[in-house]
Amino acid sequence: MDYDVTIIGAGAGGYLAAFYLARKKKKVLIIEKEKFGGECLNYGCIPSKALIELSESINYLETMPGMKINYDLDLNEWQKWKNSMIGKITGNAERACKAKGANVIYGTGKIIDKNTVSVNNSEYTSHFIIIDTGSVPVKVKGIDDVYYNREILDIKNIPKKLVIIGGGYIGVEIGTAFRKLGSEVYIIEMKERILPEVEEDLSRAVDRKLTKLGINILTSSKVISVKKSGAYTVKIENHDDLTADIVLMSVGRIPNTENLGIDNAGIVMDGKFIKTDDHKRTNVGNIYAIGDVSGDPMLAHKAFYDAYVASENICGNNVVSDYKSMPLVIYTDPEISFTGKTTEKYKKVPVMANPRSLTMNQNEGFFKIFYDDDGTIAGAGIAAPRSSEIISEIGIAVEAGLNMKDMFLTIHPHPTISEGIKDACEE
Amino acid sequence: MDYDVTIIGAGAGGYLAAFYLARKKKKVLIIEKEKFGGECLNYGCIPSKALIELSESINYLETMPGMKINYDLDLNEWQKWKNSMIGKITGNAERACKAKGANVIYGTGKIIDKNTVSVNNSEYTSHFIIIDTGSVPVKVKGIDDVYYNREILDIKNIPKKLVIIGGGYIGVEIGTAFRKLGSEVYIIEMKERILPEVEEDLSRAVDRKLTKLGINILTSSKVISVKKSGAYTVKIENHDDLTADIVLMSVGRIPNTENLGIDNAGIVMDGKFIKTDDHKRTNVGNIYAIGDVSGDPMLAHKAFYDAYVASENICGNNVVSDYKSMPLVIYTDPEISFTGKTTEKYKKVPVMANPRSLTMNQNEGFFKIFYDDDGTIAGAGIAAPRSSEIISEIGIAVEAGLNMKDMFLTIHPHPTISEGIKDACEE
Repeated sequence: MDYDVTIIGAGAGGYLAAFYLARKKKKVLIIEKEKFGGECLNYGCIPSKALIELSESINYLETMPGMKINYDLDLNEWQKWKNSMIGKITGNAERACKAKGANVIYGTGKIIDKNTVSVNNSEYTSHFIIIDTGSVPVKVKGIDDVYYNREILDIKNIPKKLVIIGGGYIGVEIGTAFRKLGSEVYIIEMKERILPEVEEDLSRAVDRKLTKLGINILTSSKVISVKKSGAYTVKIENHDDLTADIVLMSVGRIPNTENLGIDNAGIVMDGKFIKTDDHKRTNVGNIYAIGDVSGDPMLAHKAFYDAYVASENICGNNVVSDYKSMPLVIYTDPEISFTGKTTEKYKKVPVMANPRSLTMNQNEGFFKIFYDDDGTIAGAGIAAPRSSEIISEIGIAVEAGLNMKDMFLTIHPHPTISEGIKDACEE
Repeated sequence: MDYDVTIIGAGAGGYLAAFYLARKKKKVLIIEKEKFGGECLNYGCIPSKALIELSESINYLETMPGMKINYDLDLNEWQKWKNSMIGKITGNAERACKAKGANVIYGTGKIIDKNTVSVNNSEYTSHFIIIDTGSVPVKVKGIDDVYYNREILDIKNIPKKLVIIGGGYIGVEIGTAFRKLGSEVYIIEMKERILPEVEEDLSRAVDRKLTKLGINILTSSKVISVKKSGAYTVKIENHDDLTADIVLMSVGRIPNTENLGIDNAGIVMDGKFIKTDDHKRTNVGNIYAIGDVSGDPMLAHKAFYDAYVASENICGNNVVSDYKSMPLVIYTDPEISFTGKTTEKYKKVPVMANPRSLTMNQNEGFFKIFYDDDGTIAGAGIAAPRSSEIISEIGIAVEAGLNMKDMFLTIHPHPTISEGIKDACEE
């Protein structure tokens, strides 16, 4: 065998697995067809957070009493900074893998049989294979020439009018950011509400704030066609046509298994995903699948965790994946975070009662903690500034089986957003 | 007896104790000589956080590649917003206490005997007394007519040149904010380093960044005199005189027991503090002391916690105070947070390796987790953006006796600052 482990895809899961395994002295080959770091680092969560951060600061200052600001944003210059910032992260990741001894080949990996992967017309054998080929945006037949996450995050001018098809987390994050940067924004969602992936009250808090910000939200609305001739014209059922200089399609993502050679190894699918057991192992005992391609939720931190589980199992340690405190965060306004599960019992306190939020001129949203009959924390849904930074407190509580009083009695620093958790855990 | 409990001082601890006790159907009198909410809400942590938030956003945009901003800050208008924001918080606190049945009297409370407190020439008897009279800034004889926290947070113009005497957390927070708002800033500290209250590497991270920001830090430096005639002249040992349009004194705070009638009830002191046991009870069995007046650290969240402990004990529940995960947060750059204790063993990862920080154009600081021989988490020192929001994860881990692996295996959302904790907890 040429290698102990061949990894197809150097996205969030793939590169971390390469790092873990190489560190444990496994001989590792990692194959990447585009950029080290994959979708999240290069085209997704990292560039979007940079843009969102920028838009939030501008909006905060524009709406702060006593402040008058004028700004000139050279998006071209900013993109250079962004790309250099991303280059640092992906460069560090690649260097770390190589420093531990992993071999990196750029090209499209294809499974030939259960121990063989081809890339750039060469074949490499290995004891194990890890598939981390990620996902691609859903494209709708007949709707061409529109923007997806990659293109929108790489633009050089703020759009005057932006129509977003799909009110899931990507559409809502991007829409919030561009609205705060001055665009006229429409979000068109087929379902009854935006952010259908989260609890209704979380979605409602966002809908209310985005509407205040002047975003036009069309729910239960179906796009019939998108035509481009210079500008775009978007036809919508039971609604006037919309024109736009940019149309973003964000109607979901599908696992990427095209031309992967799945059948060559007899790998069993679960719908569009590769089926794995709780060791992240496919039906073929020496082949693992991690990240987006192996099941929902399609999130980088799920891929990171899968990378750990698969690597440990390949090293002979029996590690079972446990997603019970898998967080979901959406960087909109207010910022949404969820982890654990809902229960009938919950306590909810408003952001209005959180002094730190008020110092930031923010007063919308809530902290909602779910708990079992005996007071054990089951999960939380939070709509509050910087909620993504505090949701892991609840993740830890869920994992460790802590109860409401444990959280309340842990002294939280004042003034912080995190006090909202403590306050919601009070009897 | 007129009341079950008389509380002297409606600061962070006092008003919360009034709320807790009134909610438990105790007949409560709370006496406040100035403003409901006390120093923290009116003149300390709340207004300072609002100012710091403003300065951080401005500095972030001013240093962001591709952005050019011009702004005009009408500090007078901003102060109105700030005061109205504070009014909401203090108003809510006062209304909540009254709604539960607590009686509020404005005036200076004085202990007459162990069951009697006078205010506005009337005397009231009660079964219990809680003292929450807070602290006042240390004033140095011969240095008059300077600014303290109250005055500096209430100014209507950004000072051109600000000299800060005392490089503890108040001086450093204020200095960072005004530097980012355009002031020329000097911080003069007698000890060898600024922020002597925290670990040396935390203090060093701040020193390095503040120096980059152009703050002039003079350590091991002693102020000889401050003269005011129009502008200020500050004489410093072995240093040229400094002129300034504002001089801030922030050389510490002392517990406020002046004219409180301590001796009338025979209350025993511990230096300048009122001595309490681990139930927050003084040597006089029915008199409790909480917050700043009852011992270090002088922090609002310590007062909140003390309020809980004292209230529970007054209600006959045997609650012992446990400060082992008492957090300390300093809103400077990078933001500093500490909880628990240091140990010989620790793991440290740099902020440079935290993608979320990089999306914010921040790359200075570190995440340092202390642990015992068996891997149990003992504490943490973090110098990172928004570290105050994530330090409670460590507080919870310390309280629950969790170990490094527990933290590492809790899935943290990506990309967040909190991932720095997870990464530092990796084997």
